[in-house]
Amino acid sequence: MLLTLPDIQKKYNLYAKEHPFNFEPKELYEPIEYILNVGGKRLRPALVLMAANLFENEIDSALPAAYAIEVFHNFTLVHDDIMDEAPLRRGQPTIHTKYDTNVAILSGDVMLIYAYKYLLEAPSATLAQVIKSFNQFAIAVCEGQQMDVNFESRNDVTIEEYIKMIELKTAALIAGALRIGAYMVTADEQDAFHLSEFGRNIGIAFQLQDDILDTFGDPEKFGKKVGGDIAQNKKTYLVLKSLQLADEATASELHQWLSTKPKDESAKIEAVKNIFTRLDIKKHASTIKNKYLDEAYYHLDAIKVSDERKQYLRLFGETLVYRNI
Amino acid sequence: MLLTLPDIQKKYNLYAKEHPFNFEPKELYEPIEYILNVGGKRLRPALVLMAANLFENEIDSALPAAYAIEVFHNFTLVHDDIMDEAPLRRGQPTIHTKYDTNVAILSGDVMLIYAYKYLLEAPSATLAQVIKSFNQFAIAVCEGQQMDVNFESRNDVTIEEYIKMIELKTAALIAGALRIGAYMVTADEQDAFHLSEFGRNIGIAFQLQDDILDTFGDPEKFGKKVGGDIAQNKKTYLVLKSLQLADEATASELHQWLSTKPKDESAKIEAVKNIFTRLDIKKHASTIKNKYLDEAYYHLDAIKVSDERKQYLRLFGETLVYRNI
Repeated sequence: MLLTLPDIQKKYNLYAKEHPFNFEPKELYEPIEYILNVGGKRLRPALVLMAANLFENEIDSALPAAYAIEVFHNFTLVHDDIMDEAPLRRGQPTIHTKYDTNVAILSGDVMLIYAYKYLLEAPSATLAQVIKSFNQFAIAVCEGQQMDVNFESRNDVTIEEYIKMIELKTAALIAGALRIGAYMVTADEQDAFHLSEFGRNIGIAFQLQDDILDTFGDPEKFGKKVGGDIAQNKKTYLVLKSLQLADEATASELHQWLSTKPKDESAKIEAVKNIFTRLDIKKHASTIKNKYLDEAYYHLDAIKVSDERKQYLRLFGETLVYRNI
Repeated sequence: MLLTLPDIQKKYNLYAKEHPFNFEPKELYEPIEYILNVGGKRLRPALVLMAANLFENEIDSALPAAYAIEVFHNFTLVHDDIMDEAPLRRGQPTIHTKYDTNVAILSGDVMLIYAYKYLLEAPSATLAQVIKSFNQFAIAVCEGQQMDVNFESRNDVTIEEYIKMIELKTAALIAGALRIGAYMVTADEQDAFHLSEFGRNIGIAFQLQDDILDTFGDPEKFGKKVGGDIAQNKKTYLVLKSLQLADEATASELHQWLSTKPKDESAKIEAVKNIFTRLDIKKHASTIKNKYLDEAYYHLDAIKVSDERKQYLRLFGETLVYRNI
């Protein structure tokens, strides 16, 4: 049966509930239960299951991998929050705040190992491919995180490097979730490849859209504070493209703004936004975003199953990344 | 060919040298190269290879797993050193000291993933068993570490709990290294089991010996400072057995000493050592250590290969744990 996203999420939530981290010593496992249950949209495990459902009606065999992906994703959040000194995650205290940093390190470590434990339930025919794909994107996520950190102290980041960074940090996990979902129902290598490329391109497009919305989004609809990237001097696509297009004076003005952290951020946000507008950056960003979207749907089209089976994955992509922003 | 320990180490060192962590971004990988090359005895990868060599003359196929075990072991050291705020490891600055804590967290994470990457080179016939064993002992190491932390603030630790803790924290990795070595040359499950039990029992005996030597060792021969465990109020087997055997007054005296951290440690070390001596604790500790040693060699004997093939592994065990201490 082809399942809708709510059906898939219901199935996943039931599985997760039936596999709690209720082991000993509780000081190690309680924080894991806590972080897995403070909310979150659980999009990545849904992607695993939607990928499996492209090829098969019965997708229960893909549930352990879906759980593995969510546990892995939460492991990265736990360790990232230590590194970013973030006090809150989804409105609730982070593990290193609620417990302590040592607990956050060790509980995170064991989460990563448990992800592999759940992956081991893959069919033996594709087990090696599942673990290989997982390793690849897990390494990519770490490399992307390090590149992002490096960019903070660099003034010569290129657009190419930026795209590479978001590909590793964000898109690789989406691609990996889809690819592993395909392997869990032993889909063929070519379909798994196209599905993975669909995810990679959607992931890059999603991050580019996030860059646009962070500056140009509707404050009512955008979840985070509009202008946050500018306030934090983040070298997003908007900034890098501006530096590429700007004359010397404008580039210098932009560099100036993005090297300060004034108490009143609003003047800074307004000034930088004006530079973006003068250079028509939103249009440039949309154009490249749509290029990645086109590429994504090219790969979705290439998968050898009926359009009907692709409908929910297509809808999911369209809900995640809009063409007209 | 049956290889001696030096031959095995030479082979391992060559493989490690040919597989450097020279990837990008270098901020992520340079610390890994650093920690893998600041020394260390590399006993755990040697165990993988010795286990393989029990069954096969040609053991090159086990080299990736040997490397995986060493990379994993170093990952635990990197994260443990953050948690213990240790400035030095093997006489050199730890990663979080030389670089920073965020680097130590992220480089450690990626090391754990690379361990799995190297494990993937296992024969397909035993890949699932290799990963399953690895997961088991990796989880055990984390659980043992957490139990050890918990013990610091507890006054009711039992001997049974202590043995469980050292089994998880120390012995599981030795058992796992041997078991995985056997799987890398597709040894049968029963032999892999006996080898693993040999390792588990040797590991527990080794830790008990370490407890004895920390107090009663020859300062000339013992690598660490004699009396260190007492100074740090560690709840070793010696302490727990003393509390079990002591009358109320002696137990109270021992509790008293182990709740202080005086500037001059020598009087404290002397007093606690005297209590141990009065209670004949060294003999008790040796007796239980020898019980684990007997169990270890029972399992080594049970492996279905000739005594000649077992000679170096037996020698290794005997060098690691002496019967007469």
